[in-house]
Amino acid sequence: MIHLDTLNSGSRQDFAAALGDIFEHSPWIAERAFAARPFPTVAALHDAMLAALDAASAEEKLALIRAHPELGGKVARAGQMADASRREQGALGLDRLSDAEFTAFQTLNAAYVKRFDFPFIIAVGRHTRASILGQLARRAANDRDTERASALREIGHIARLRLVAAVDGPGKPKTDGRLSTHVLNMVSGKPAAGVRVVLKEIAGDTQSVLRETVTNADGRTDEPLIGGGPLRTGWYEIEFHMGKYFAQEGVPTADPPFLDVVPIRFAIAEPEGHYHVPLIASPWSYSTYRGS
Amino acid sequence: MIHLDTLNSGSRQDFAAALGDIFEHSPWIAERAFAARPFPTVAALHDAMLAALDAASAEEKLALIRAHPELGGKVARAGQMADASRREQGALGLDRLSDAEFTAFQTLNAAYVKRFDFPFIIAVGRHTRASILGQLARRAANDRDTERASALREIGHIARLRLVAAVDGPGKPKTDGRLSTHVLNMVSGKPAAGVRVVLKEIAGDTQSVLRETVTNADGRTDEPLIGGGPLRTGWYEIEFHMGKYFAQEGVPTADPPFLDVVPIRFAIAEPEGHYHVPLIASPWSYSTYRGS
Amino acid sequence: MIHLDTLNSGSRQDFAAALGDIFEHSPWIAERAFAARPFPTVAALHDAMLAALDAASAEEKLALIRAHPELGGKVARAGQMADASRREQGALGLDRLSDAEFTAFQTLNAAYVKRFDFPFIIAVGRHTRASILGQLARRAANDRDTERASALREIGHIARLRLVAAVDGPGKPKTDGRLSTHVLNMVSGKPAAGVRVVLKEIAGDTQSVLRETVTNADGRTDEPLIGGGPLRTGWYEIEFHMGKYFAQEGVPTADPPFLDVVPIRFAIAEPEGHYHVPLIASPWSYSTYRGS
Amino acid sequence: MIHLDTLNSGSRQDFAAALGDIFEHSPWIAERAFAARPFPTVAALHDAMLAALDAASAEEKLALIRAHPELGGKVARAGQMADASRREQGALGLDRLSDAEFTAFQTLNAAYVKRFDFPFIIAVGRHTRASILGQLARRAANDRDTERASALREIGHIARLRLVAAVDGPGKPKTDGRLSTHVLNMVSGKPAAGVRVVLKEIAGDTQSVLRETVTNADGRTDEPLIGGGPLRTGWYEIEFHMGKYFAQEGVPTADPPFLDVVPIRFAIAEPEGHYHVPLIASPWSYSTYRGS
Repeated sequence: MIHLDTLNSGSRQDFAAALGDIFEHSPWIAERAFAARPFPTVAALHDAMLAALDAASAEEKLALIRAHPELGGKVARAGQMADASRREQGALGLDRLSDAEFTAFQTLNAAYVKRFDFPFIIAVGRHTRASILGQLARRAANDRDTERASALREIGHIARLRLVAAVDGPGKPKTDGRLSTHVLNMVSGKPAAGVRVVLKEIAGDTQSVLRETVTNADGRTDEPLIGGGPLRTGWYEIEFHMGKYFAQEGVPTADPPFLDVVPIRFAIAEPEGHYHVPLIASPWSYSTYRGS
Repeated sequence: MIHLDTLNSGSRQDFAAALGDIFEHSPWIAERAFAARPFPTVAALHDAMLAALDAASAEEKLALIRAHPELGGKVARAGQMADASRREQGALGLDRLSDAEFTAFQTLNAAYVKRFDFPFIIAVGRHTRASILGQLARRAANDRDTERASALREIGHIARLRLVAAVDGPGKPKTDGRLSTHVLNMVSGKPAAGVRVVLKEIAGDTQSVLRETVTNADGRTDEPLIGGGPLRTGWYEIEFHMGKYFAQEGVPTADPPFLDVVPIRFAIAEPEGHYHVPLIASPWSYSTYRGS
Repeated sequence: MIHLDTLNSGSRQDFAAALGDIFEHSPWIAERAFAARPFPTVAALHDAMLAALDAASAEEKLALIRAHPELGGKVARAGQMADASRREQGALGLDRLSDAEFTAFQTLNAAYVKRFDFPFIIAVGRHTRASILGQLARRAANDRDTERASALREIGHIARLRLVAAVDGPGKPKTDGRLSTHVLNMVSGKPAAGVRVVLKEIAGDTQSVLRETVTNADGRTDEPLIGGGPLRTGWYEIEFHMGKYFAQEGVPTADPPFLDVVPIRFAIAEPEGHYHVPLIASPWSYSTYRGS
Repeated sequence: MIHLDTLNSGSRQDFAAALGDIFEHSPWIAERAFAARPFPTVAALHDAMLAALDAASAEEKLALIRAHPELGGKVARAGQMADASRREQGALGLDRLSDAEFTAFQTLNAAYVKRFDFPFIIAVGRHTRASILGQLARRAANDRDTERASALREIGHIARLRLVAAVDGPGKPKTDGRLSTHVLNMVSGKPAAGVRVVLKEIAGDTQSVLRETVTNADGRTDEPLIGGGPLRTGWYEIEFHMGKYFAQEGVPTADPPFLDVVPIRFAIAEPEGHYHVPLIASPWSYSTYRGS
């Protein structure tokens, strides 16, 4: 990781070399942003690069869009992606699509590329696999101008994530989201400690477990359910094992208990947001809400 | 259906003939209850038959228990069940068990019969398939006295259901339960009309849809989700399609909406109870509880 | 009370005599509605009278407005109101205003009459005393056309209430509202029986008890908290004595208990609406909402 | 404030001088605790002093109890209280009792002193005025042994508060409680910013405003509603001005709005506890609970 001070004090050449891949194979954006030095914050550097992109010609913008690899396509397999692109796509598991997903993806993606003559670009680190497929289906129906704007907006998201990963210094732009929970026992009026909590990602009828943990003495999890990066737009379910909890606490209920595993299903729409999803429960009732 | 008046005024022979199968192949119970005529209510008749059973000798009780078919076993296949037994087992789908269920059932049932030397008896109309398997596993671990008492208790439940189906007249004992719901929109302060509601039965990881309906102008369903008979002890899930509802109502939310399909998972433990399971919802929060 | 059939079959003279005071001292409205006979429902009769008023000239409408007594003013004291007017004003206690209220009322009312040259008309049966004062203050600021429309709208409400009180028959227009409650104990999952419930009317800093009752076995009150007529627009508070209830039930809490008397304060805005205001409570939490 | 290190390293005389008034006019407790030096934490020092008290003879304990001034009595007026006692009683306003309160207090206090032959002792900093009167009434009915134990327990609370105020150093025993709130808007799914929040202390029918504030961008108050010391056991009400908030936000409601000022009334029973009392609200519903 390079420090902002180094970028602020070094040569134009070093600057462009260090930041040349923040925008895919397009060091000219870094070169143009160089003029605005020094940058007091990483966010200011990000803004300057976005401004350089914004001021570019239509042809330059289109060239930038076309410089991106086709998502999940041949290019990805041939190992010709920028290193950062490869990491991002791998993290999501786009290289581990099911056959049905792969077919849907290939069909939609081919139609997209044919229609717009440029690749489908999306900041994969901000989406679940299901959300990427959904976005692809939706955006394939846009008109060309709208979709060019979509591509540039996503490129901006990608650049922000890459910049934060590459440059150290004050005033980093926000790239982290957070999903947290809190369980409260309304029979005792106290935090519910020792509740098993399972976080799942939902994609249609399939669910995959992302995390299993147990609430601590304050009824929270020791770490956020998701944190340390953007949240992925998509569907989730938190399962709270309340039946076993109330049984352990000796709270009388029915047999079988009215509530056992309480599922809370919700979508994340803001990758940089804080989603607090608490459960206020008795053996016979519960409520949840988006907290902060 | 025979009327209570007819039973009250007819001969002992007719009485025993009409009620001979209320307790499986055991007309002697009806015969002994005959002495307590006239019965002001069907419930009083039921009580008198239970009293006759209670006063019987240990041998007679055991004979009654042994008069019952083995649940899902050879006898059931050979068509030797009392007609009422066949109807009850068919309704539950015990003749359509999955292979894994059938194997589990056979193993547990064989162990049960071997241990107690009498068949496993349960009022199947008051249980889901999963609940029957669960009860079988649990009761197989009881001691012999406890389990004899369990069998007689279940025989009483079966007799009550048969009696209510067979005899018309005043004061029937309660055999009906009810599951109802109500959806309220906390943005408008009004009942949520037009919400799709799907009721599922849960058995481990499998779910089967019992009912699909839509809320009416009062936010309720035109008929109870389940009614007209005992509820089956077991696990259920109601799915409320709130995302589409709020979209139709033009209520602004996120994209994707924080809440789309809201699942409420719960158990029914009282077959003759009223379970009211409402949903009080905004696009960002909801609560539910066991109402009445 | 006269029956709709009698009105439908009698003479014009009898018709006008019977309905002459439905609109204050203005039998001409009934006379004109007579032509639309026969009326299948009381609501249809009400509609015909409103249509006759709507079709009247501006002078006739103004004369009708001016035919009304000044609310709480000299005319009221001199006993010159139509009998129905007197009853309605008495029921509200406008003849028992506090000195401060009386002064405020007199000042506002005098300004109103001076500004518009007609009396302030309001269907008092649909408002609390505080709401009448609030409406007077607000409406005094309207322009003349708006206020003439307000007066006619209120006259329509008054006529509907008088018609329903005077004429028997099918299809009466809705004049009744209802306030109900329901208390549920979330420790037991059952209705909370035996909870003391106190209903108060709120006017600024003063509160007057309208009703004290206790919940029945279903957690409801045997009769609606308010019913049998329109609800009065205004502010209310229901106090639920939950501390004593949970103590009686032997539910462990703190000393003093976190919740004792739970106040729910709300406004009624629709006199003919159904306001269901439940309390879903544990010793440490509660929720309420406008139900239906 | 003296530092624990100074106490650990100084002479016995200095030690007793510095801590002689932690227990009212009773330096002997400090003197006996001196032997247990050095104390790693302030809490350990507190424990050692309590142990010295516990090991004292019945006569010494009674003498300590009797060394305390009569609460609100003649001694208080004559200025003969230990300085710390005076401050604690003044903070509560026991010198500003209403006439009725003063009479009730004098009567109960006189009866207490007559019955037990020692003064009524209570850690006033942990109680509201109403709670002190309630405790006096309740404890006056205890037997002598119970009440001697009550007095010693309260002396321990008082000593802890005095010690924390007098001695600096690591590991102070917990003396601070906290009351906080959080308001969430369930129409927007966001924290409710700009909500007026009024905290009142309740004593029977009278209420006194303790604090008026407004929620910040996170829906919380910038500082806890109460903090920086023990909470006073007693009754409170938080009023949330939701009607104005939703109007400012442009959320459509009724006229008048169903909810305007939402009162949440609750008791604090643990002076050193954290009471989090949130409001999850739409214009038609709300819920609250004891959070953490």
